[in-house]
Amino acid sequence: MDRSARVSRLLADMTPREKLGQLQIVFRPRLDDAARLVRDGIGSVFWPRSAAAVNRLQRVAVTETRLGIPLLVGLDVIHGQRTIAPVPLAQAASFDPRLVEELARLAASEARSGGVTWTFSPMVDVSFDPRWGRVVEGFGEDVHLTSIMGRAMVRGYQGSDLSLPGTIAATAKHFVAYGQPEGGRDYNTVDVSEHRLRNIHLEPFRAVVDEGAASVMAAFNTVAGRPMHANSRLLTGTLKDEWGFGGVIVGDADGVRNLLPHGVAEDLADAVTQAFHAGIDIEMGGAPSDLDDAALTRIDSARIDDAVARVLTLKERLGLFERPYVHEQDERTGPTAEARSLVRRAAARSSVLLENDGTLPLGRRGRILLTGPYATSTDHLGAWTQSFGAEAGSIAAALSERGIDAEVVPGVDFLDDDPGGIDEVVAAAAHCDVAVVVVGEPSALSGEAASRSDLRLPGRQTELIRAVAGAGIPFVVVVVAGRPLVVGDWAELAGSLVVVWHGGTEAAAAIVDVLLGDEDPAGRLPMSWPRSVGQVPVYYAHENTGRPATRGGTLSAEAEDVGLHGPDKVHEKYTSKYLDLDLGPQFAFGRGSSYATFDHSIPRLSASGVSLADLGAGVTVTLEIDVTNTASRSGDEVLQVFVQDLVATVAQPVRRLIAFARRTLAPGETATLAFEIGRDELHFWDASSARFVVEPGLFRLHVGSTLAATQHVEFRVS
Amino acid sequence: MDRSARVSRLLADMTPREKLGQLQIVFRPRLDDAARLVRDGIGSVFWPRSAAAVNRLQRVAVTETRLGIPLLVGLDVIHGQRTIAPVPLAQAASFDPRLVEELARLAASEARSGGVTWTFSPMVDVSFDPRWGRVVEGFGEDVHLTSIMGRAMVRGYQGSDLSLPGTIAATAKHFVAYGQPEGGRDYNTVDVSEHRLRNIHLEPFRAVVDEGAASVMAAFNTVAGRPMHANSRLLTGTLKDEWGFGGVIVGDADGVRNLLPHGVAEDLADAVTQAFHAGIDIEMGGAPSDLDDAALTRIDSARIDDAVARVLTLKERLGLFERPYVHEQDERTGPTAEARSLVRRAAARSSVLLENDGTLPLGRRGRILLTGPYATSTDHLGAWTQSFGAEAGSIAAALSERGIDAEVVPGVDFLDDDPGGIDEVVAAAAHCDVAVVVVGEPSALSGEAASRSDLRLPGRQTELIRAVAGAGIPFVVVVVAGRPLVVGDWAELAGSLVVVWHGGTEAAAAIVDVLLGDEDPAGRLPMSWPRSVGQVPVYYAHENTGRPATRGGTLSAEAEDVGLHGPDKVHEKYTSKYLDLDLGPQFAFGRGSSYATFDHSIPRLSASGVSLADLGAGVTVTLEIDVTNTASRSGDEVLQVFVQDLVATVAQPVRRLIAFARRTLAPGETATLAFEIGRDELHFWDASSARFVVEPGLFRLHVGSTLAATQHVEFRVS
Repeated sequence: MDRSARVSRLLADMTPREKLGQLQIVFRPRLDDAARLVRDGIGSVFWPRSAAAVNRLQRVAVTETRLGIPLLVGLDVIHGQRTIAPVPLAQAASFDPRLVEELARLAASEARSGGVTWTFSPMVDVSFDPRWGRVVEGFGEDVHLTSIMGRAMVRGYQGSDLSLPGTIAATAKHFVAYGQPEGGRDYNTVDVSEHRLRNIHLEPFRAVVDEGAASVMAAFNTVAGRPMHANSRLLTGTLKDEWGFGGVIVGDADGVRNLLPHGVAEDLADAVTQAFHAGIDIEMGGAPSDLDDAALTRIDSARIDDAVARVLTLKERLGLFERPYVHEQDERTGPTAEARSLVRRAAARSSVLLENDGTLPLGRRGRILLTGPYATSTDHLGAWTQSFGAEAGSIAAALSERGIDAEVVPGVDFLDDDPGGIDEVVAAAAHCDVAVVVVGEPSALSGEAASRSDLRLPGRQTELIRAVAGAGIPFVVVVVAGRPLVVGDWAELAGSLVVVWHGGTEAAAAIVDVLLGDEDPAGRLPMSWPRSVGQVPVYYAHENTGRPATRGGTLSAEAEDVGLHGPDKVHEKYTSKYLDLDLGPQFAFGRGSSYATFDHSIPRLSASGVSLADLGAGVTVTLEIDVTNTASRSGDEVLQVFVQDLVATVAQPVRRLIAFARRTLAPGETATLAFEIGRDELHFWDASSARFVVEPGLFRLHVGSTLAATQHVEFRVS
Repeated sequence: MDRSARVSRLLADMTPREKLGQLQIVFRPRLDDAARLVRDGIGSVFWPRSAAAVNRLQRVAVTETRLGIPLLVGLDVIHGQRTIAPVPLAQAASFDPRLVEELARLAASEARSGGVTWTFSPMVDVSFDPRWGRVVEGFGEDVHLTSIMGRAMVRGYQGSDLSLPGTIAATAKHFVAYGQPEGGRDYNTVDVSEHRLRNIHLEPFRAVVDEGAASVMAAFNTVAGRPMHANSRLLTGTLKDEWGFGGVIVGDADGVRNLLPHGVAEDLADAVTQAFHAGIDIEMGGAPSDLDDAALTRIDSARIDDAVARVLTLKERLGLFERPYVHEQDERTGPTAEARSLVRRAAARSSVLLENDGTLPLGRRGRILLTGPYATSTDHLGAWTQSFGAEAGSIAAALSERGIDAEVVPGVDFLDDDPGGIDEVVAAAAHCDVAVVVVGEPSALSGEAASRSDLRLPGRQTELIRAVAGAGIPFVVVVVAGRPLVVGDWAELAGSLVVVWHGGTEAAAAIVDVLLGDEDPAGRLPMSWPRSVGQVPVYYAHENTGRPATRGGTLSAEAEDVGLHGPDKVHEKYTSKYLDLDLGPQFAFGRGSSYATFDHSIPRLSASGVSLADLGAGVTVTLEIDVTNTASRSGDEVLQVFVQDLVATVAQPVRRLIAFARRTLAPGETATLAFEIGRDELHFWDASSARFVVEPGLFRLHVGSTLAATQHVEFRVS
């Protein structure tokens, strides 16, 4: 790694103790405590909650330490600093990377104005397990979508130059495979093959590192038995050496100390040594004493110098040596009107219309009954926001602000077992024309350490839906959640169903925009919704099996009585499914719709074939399709392109997303969308040769607005 | 591989077409069709259902083919041929390998008397997923228990010499990792690291191959993307080359053809070629045309010769060249009294007493109400039995045969949604003194292609239990099942709970033996029972995490509202668990009890340490413990010894079973049980060095009658 003259000079000048100080970030909620650590030489702090406090700490670092090295100021800016955007899973649902980039830019500008220079975002952990609470913080089940959204977020945070105002250093996390904990229990064991690691979990990291992410965070989990905080093979071997990552690898909170319960370190000193030798550059959490003088006798000095150089280089990229302080008068402590407008639009664009019997948009169809715990709740910010994030309002208040005098009867609480208010809801329905039932899970039920074994609506919310369905008026179910839920016990009752996720500061206004039709909820699911928790994991890009099923099972006396009388009855019974469940998820990845309607042309390919040599030289095949808005209102179409590699030496996904586009079209408007298909879209990791390969043969491209509504074309790689 | 003179001579003499014939076993239910195939040169057939039919086919092979090579006669003899033993999962619950060996010997003697020479058993697939229906056919979640039971079954089938009467060739299946299908859906993708493959899934195969298993069956699944039927690395590289396996690798039914839907073969010819090149020796299923003359141009001739030699060698080991025919008059077409007695004892010894409030044994405590669908059902044989297996009776009939005039009211059916009969049960309870509620899942709900997404009792059985609990008389719940079930919705109501599994031909009599106290249901669970299906996988030997939980979650407003306000609140919240579920399974692996009670001495170790060099030279440490029956009746104690490797370079299981013993003790009797702990008990597979290693350090041995009731001692490896 090239070092600047400044970094080289500093390194040469630093005492061993000064070096170690650069390799930690430690929690100290009280400012005086933090200042003392800075005076003692620590190189990074958590954001002390104001620009003034940052300046105080930077002043200590710059003026009261021998070398005057400024601080990195870290904070979990996950989906907004002051103005809270929809949760990342919702942002993924927008299928709109430009929007994601804008949201990250907004977050960065607010955070940097207060002196934050380093965020621990984006999370690019692909996950197939909605029990895992942390799916809310990522971009869902798809490798390509996660990679694209991760890149967009990195661009938004970092801009073109980290030394410019309004930028912060991004951290891609959690390296690697954190999204596949056994049983969906956070922090649990991850067992994964090199095949899956390369094809799925590492890919989004490769993308965001390519995009220039300044840092990467190690994951809490093991990979195949070895904790990531001590995993030299992946941290140093793959990330730093193979990919040439020149940034900072930061540990997760207490992740180094967690090597003790992992049972791979004899004691704390051993844990610290293993972590730095594996490639960790900054320990997060723990105590300054973790890196005491004795560490110098254990940790290779070249490794220490490398880690310090990485940290100093990041500070240099951020322009901190020139401008360690922020303008306190420019600190943004709340949302601007523009910021509110952006996150409001984002929340609407993240909404996914799963069913619509025509009840949506509501327009002005008479008196509205607003019910469900989210009728009046303001818990829309979602997991991983801080106390200084701008509060959201309630849907009831947002309707009222629009001059709509709805009947508001929540009926039930989120978690309470008391169904007592349901009668009141039914009574109110008698004099209303349409009901909006807003159900879901509160923010604290998703996020870190928030795994759920039961994915149904908690409390008595399902009973509320049943009661409203029985009341005989048209109704809409709006789901506010931080993960895919199991809705099979009531979904068939809901003719109109829209998922709005945890939408942030302006969620309530955005939900009203969607309900009234001012915005088109044309997002798509970034993660499949299972039929039942017993079906997990269920995801669209599963690999071909040898015995695919064409229909599901029905647990009836007739169906189960196939008999196993001899080996001569191999038929539909012997396929990969459950005896007691339909095939596939309740709602698949990519599902969604629009208030408008669209026609698609037959897709066109620029060539019927391409050679391996041409692919290697960068030649692409172009897929084109014309899309026409056939409705009398404007709306958004989302096109998804999936590849199917028909025969390969390794079992391939049945389909795999390789491109997508979201386009707003006026009534009658036609647009031609084009997608370039090249080597990177067709390759897969071949474990036997330890590289990405494209194998010759037939490829099928599926294109359409959902997985279920595609047309396909084929071409041959020779 | 050494070839006998006969095999070498035959190989030299055989035409290419004659060779190919030896490499298939094809389903032909009609005897004439089978005879035609034999005449055309096929080398193996499925059992044609009688000794006479076998002799007819062997006569065709011996007298109507040019070389007169006798046939292998294969059949899925899984847990008995005529006399049906408890399902393998139940046999594992006996914790009694001698019993398992006896049962296999009985099955072999019955099968061989009818001309069967080759069974497709034992299944040694370790599984953590009770959704997977095929757990019934294996020995549960533990590597050591599976290895020991697999060895016992191989010894029982094969005896000391396959040419002796009463023996059949065993097949270890399914190679490999078939027990870990994603989502528990049979035949589904298996993704697994080399770490887990070696430490868990391959280990039982290594054991049974070491025991001399004559054949191994390839699994339907992929391992890390490559279907096992075309997986040269594992079939040839590991099994044949590394382990020196000289037997026959047989494909599973249509497993070679399944390479087409797997998407790894261009066409059938390609599939067949890949399979044989990977190491398959006999294709099962498919059609004779799969190995047409064109195959000779594609499959390496040395590979064909190797496969043929393996098949001929197995025939030779079976003595078929000398004695191709069976004595038809000696064919055993039904259970003998001794056979009935053995499987009856086995069913009792496989029963697991999970709870007992003193209601068990019933003794003669007044009038018994027998209820539940299993009161009168005869569906006790379990999955994978054939139509010619000896039927079981009902519990009602078995009680009656014992002269006990119980009130019998089933109340509900297995799957029906009709709770109409429950009132009758409650009414009957009013004039009875104790109730026995026999619930469960019918045999067809477990086994191959019988995955369930919902593991609760099907139908209205839970309501029946609730009704009986409300009736106010003492009661016992007996569970008949082929897998761990979810019983959390009613388990706390049941003060006495015994699991009897699918117990075979004499199940009903054995259940009565257990209820009355004539037998001690002192088995132990071979697989954990989850609290809910959303908790799967949950197993005792999970690896250390960095953030173990000490308590579970309770989904209440207070519990969930911990707030994520800043990075300074890392406490019990941030541990590996669910927000909404207690820790650990409902009933853990190894759980069980006895009608007797036992005292244990403090365990003693023969040494406080051992050197790596001594371990390498075969030195062991002896663990001793004295066990005393403190009850006034005889009973069985089961001791389990678990190792805990406190610090290692790879995250270790929190505990790992390395030894166990079951001992029957008379009242007051004391026995000293001794266990030898050596290198094989302490090692683990180290992926970085690609070998099993023992790392120096402290080891803790836990010994006791269940996981929850252990004492421990420590010793150091230096």
